[in-house]
Amino acid sequence: MKQYKAEIIAVGTELLLGQIANTNAQWISVQLAKLGINVFYHSVVGDNLNRVKETFKLAESRSDLIIISGGLGPTEDDLTREAFQSITDLKMYEHEPSMDKIEAFFTKQKSVMTPNNRKQARVFEGAIVLENRTGMAPGMIVKKDGKIWVFLPGVPREMKTIINEGVIPYLKNELKLSEIIKSYVLRFIGIGESKLEHEIQDIIQRQTNPTIAPLAQSNGIVIRLTAKADTEEKAINLLSQTKEEILSKVGDYYFGMDDQTIEQVITQLLKEINYTVASAESLTGGKFIERLISVPGASAACKGSIVCYDSSVKRDILNVSENILHQQGTVSRECALELAKNVAQLLNSDIGISFTGIAGPEPIEGKPVGTVFISVYVKDKMHVVEGYEFAGDRDRIRNLAVMKGYEILLNLLKTNINA
Amino acid sequence: MKQYKAEIIAVGTELLLGQIANTNAQWISVQLAKLGINVFYHSVVGDNLNRVKETFKLAESRSDLIIISGGLGPTEDDLTREAFQSITDLKMYEHEPSMDKIEAFFTKQKSVMTPNNRKQARVFEGAIVLENRTGMAPGMIVKKDGKIWVFLPGVPREMKTIINEGVIPYLKNELKLSEIIKSYVLRFIGIGESKLEHEIQDIIQRQTNPTIAPLAQSNGIVIRLTAKADTEEKAINLLSQTKEEILSKVGDYYFGMDDQTIEQVITQLLKEINYTVASAESLTGGKFIERLISVPGASAACKGSIVCYDSSVKRDILNVSENILHQQGTVSRECALELAKNVAQLLNSDIGISFTGIAGPEPIEGKPVGTVFISVYVKDKMHVVEGYEFAGDRDRIRNLAVMKGYEILLNLLKTNINA
Repeated sequence: MKQYKAEIIAVGTELLLGQIANTNAQWISVQLAKLGINVFYHSVVGDNLNRVKETFKLAESRSDLIIISGGLGPTEDDLTREAFQSITDLKMYEHEPSMDKIEAFFTKQKSVMTPNNRKQARVFEGAIVLENRTGMAPGMIVKKDGKIWVFLPGVPREMKTIINEGVIPYLKNELKLSEIIKSYVLRFIGIGESKLEHEIQDIIQRQTNPTIAPLAQSNGIVIRLTAKADTEEKAINLLSQTKEEILSKVGDYYFGMDDQTIEQVITQLLKEINYTVASAESLTGGKFIERLISVPGASAACKGSIVCYDSSVKRDILNVSENILHQQGTVSRECALELAKNVAQLLNSDIGISFTGIAGPEPIEGKPVGTVFISVYVKDKMHVVEGYEFAGDRDRIRNLAVMKGYEILLNLLKTNINA
Repeated sequence: MKQYKAEIIAVGTELLLGQIANTNAQWISVQLAKLGINVFYHSVVGDNLNRVKETFKLAESRSDLIIISGGLGPTEDDLTREAFQSITDLKMYEHEPSMDKIEAFFTKQKSVMTPNNRKQARVFEGAIVLENRTGMAPGMIVKKDGKIWVFLPGVPREMKTIINEGVIPYLKNELKLSEIIKSYVLRFIGIGESKLEHEIQDIIQRQTNPTIAPLAQSNGIVIRLTAKADTEEKAINLLSQTKEEILSKVGDYYFGMDDQTIEQVITQLLKEINYTVASAESLTGGKFIERLISVPGASAACKGSIVCYDSSVKRDILNVSENILHQQGTVSRECALELAKNVAQLLNSDIGISFTGIAGPEPIEGKPVGTVFISVYVKDKMHVVEGYEFAGDRDRIRNLAVMKGYEILLNLLKTNINA
C-alpha cells in the first residue's frame, strides 16, 4: 500500500478566537489512525477567502489526502467552496436531492427559505456527493490530479456521520486498505502508571503487533492494544493473546474493556449476586451515588444515599453516636464505619459505603486537608475502613475519594463476597 | 498600533494521532484576543525535524508573532530547538538557573539525572528566558528579523503559567498595546438564546463598543461584552453602561458575572439570609447537592440530601404516604411536594427541594421518559411544585432537571423569601 500523507484543515474564525477547540481534527485523526493513514498536519484558518485559498494550495503541495471541515454553510462567511473553486476552476452545480431536502426542512418549519440557503446544495462537478443525514450541506469527495479532497460541514455531529457513512467506506475501497486494524482498550484501577509499565515492561519490549500503549487517565490507567492483520479474526487473535499475557501480570487491577466504566462494572457485579448498595456521603456530597445512578438500569442495584454534609445529619439521621462525634470526630475511622453500617441498615441495602474527610480549603477537627476515610460494610459478613491522605484541591480530593470508593467496592465484589 | 499577525504552532505527534485535542492553541488564542492581537493560523506538526522546520519557515513568511508549544522536553523526539536552530543558525547555551533547577529536582526525588535532561536547559543566544515555575524546560522569546518567536513547553499547566507571567507582560510592552481590552461575561438562566437576543436586539445593533456576543452554554446563556478604550477606567465605564442597559431588559434572568456559577450565587444568597437547604433526590441521584457542595464554604448553607432512588427509601425514610405512592405514584406532584417537605423536616433545614421523574430508558408508572416534577418547600412560608416534559437522553434529562431546580431556587431567593 502506498503511504498516503493526510492533512486536516478546519475553516472557521471561531477556532482562531479560541471560542472552541479543534476537536474535529482530533476525532478525524483517530479515525484515520484506525485505517492506518498517517496524518502529517492539522491546519486552522479563518473565514478569509485569500487565506483559505493559500491554505488549500499548501495542502495540495504537501499532502495526498486533504480533509476539510467547515465553511460549507449558507452565510457569506462560508468560503470553502469559493476557495477551492478559485484554485481548481472546477464548475459547480446545484445538487437536486440536497436542494429538495433543504426546501423540505423550511416547509416543515413553516418558515421561508432565504435565498442564501441554496448555496448549501452547490457541489463540484465530478464530486462524489455524501448525504448529510443530520444537517443541510452535503459532504463531497473530489479526486483531482492524484489528490483526494474531502469536504465536510463543521458541525461535529454532521461531520462525524458523513465520515462514518461516506468517507471511511470510500477510503477503504479507494486506498485498497485491505489491512485490518483493531484496538482493545484495557482498563485498570488501583495501580500507578509507572508500576503498571514496570510490570509489563518485557511484554511491551518484545511486542510489535499489537502495539501496547499505556496511558494515565483521570479514572484509572488504560492500555491500548492495536493489532494489524489481513483478516479481522487474525487481528482479534493477536489482541486476545496479548490481553491474556498482560492480565497474567496485572490482572488484579483490571476491571473492564473499551468504553466500560467502573460504575457499569460494579452495577453489573452487584446485579449478578443480587446485592444492593447505599452510600453515606459527607466529603463526597453525593458524587459516588450520582455516578452510579447515571448507569441505565442502576435501580436494581442501588437503593440511594444519605448525603450527611452537616454533622447534625450524621447524628440525627445516621445515628452516629455522640461519643464518636465528640471523641474521634466526624473525620475518623470510627465515624466512617458507623456511617457505612447505619446507612445499610436505614436504607435496607446489602452493602453500605461511606465517605468522610476534609476537602478544604480549611482543616477540620485539627486534621489536615486531604484526610479521608472510606468504609465499606457488607451486612452480616464483613467491613473495611481505609484511611488516606490525598493531595490537591477540593475537587481533586473529592474525585480521588470517589474513585477509591469504587476501587474498594470492586475488589470486594471481585473476591465474591457472596460466596 | 501595527496589526500584528499571530500564528500558533503545536509540535507533537500525539496531536496528529488524535490522542489529545489542541486545547493549547485554543487557550492561547483567547489570551491573544484579549490583547487585541489577531490570530490568523493554527498549525499542528509531528515530531519530525524536517516537517517542523518547514512549518517554522512557513510561519516566518506569513506571521509576525509565532507562538510554539511543545518539543522542548528531554527526549529525542523533542525537536523544536533543533528545527529553529537549523533555520536561523542561532547559537545555543546552557542556561544556568534552569540547569540548577533541573538538578535540584532530581536530587530531591533521590533519582539519578540522565544526561538527556541537560537538553531542557539549553536556550538560544539573545533569547529572553522565561522561568518555568511548574516544570523543567524554561520558555523563550527570540526576536529576529522583525519577527517575535515564543517557545513554550507543551504541558498545559506549564505553558499557561509562562504565558501569564512572562509572555503577556512582554507583549504588552513590546507591541505597545496601550489599548485596553476588557470583557464582562453576564450570566442568565431561565431564558432561551433566541428570546434573549430578541429582547436586546436594538442594543446589539446600535452598539459597537463594547461588542455584545450572546452564547448558549449547557448551564445557561451568557453574554460577552468586550470594550476597548485607552484607559481601564473608560473601558469599565463602557462595560457598566451596557450591562445596565441589558439588565433593564432581561435583568429578571440575570444571576451573575464572569466565572460565577449559579451554585455559588445560591450559596451566597442562602448565607445572606441565614437559610439552609436540603434535597430529596430520586431522578437526579444526588447531582443537585453534589454540585452545591462543590462550592467552598457550602457547609454553612447546605445540610445534606437523601437520595431516594429506590421507592422503599421514599416510603421508609422520607415518609411519603402509601396513599400517594399507590394513587399518584412516585413521579407525581404530590410525591414531589411530600419529598421536599419531609426532607426539610428530617434534615432540619429551612428549605427542602425535591426531584422526581423518569430519566429513561424505560417509562415508569405509565408516564413517558422526560416527565419531571420539582418541588421547593420553604418552612412555614410557602411551597411550589413544577412539572416538566424534557426531551433527550438520560444524562440530558437529569442535567436539565438540576438546572431547573437551581433556577426555581434562585428565583425564590431573589424575591427574598425571608421578607
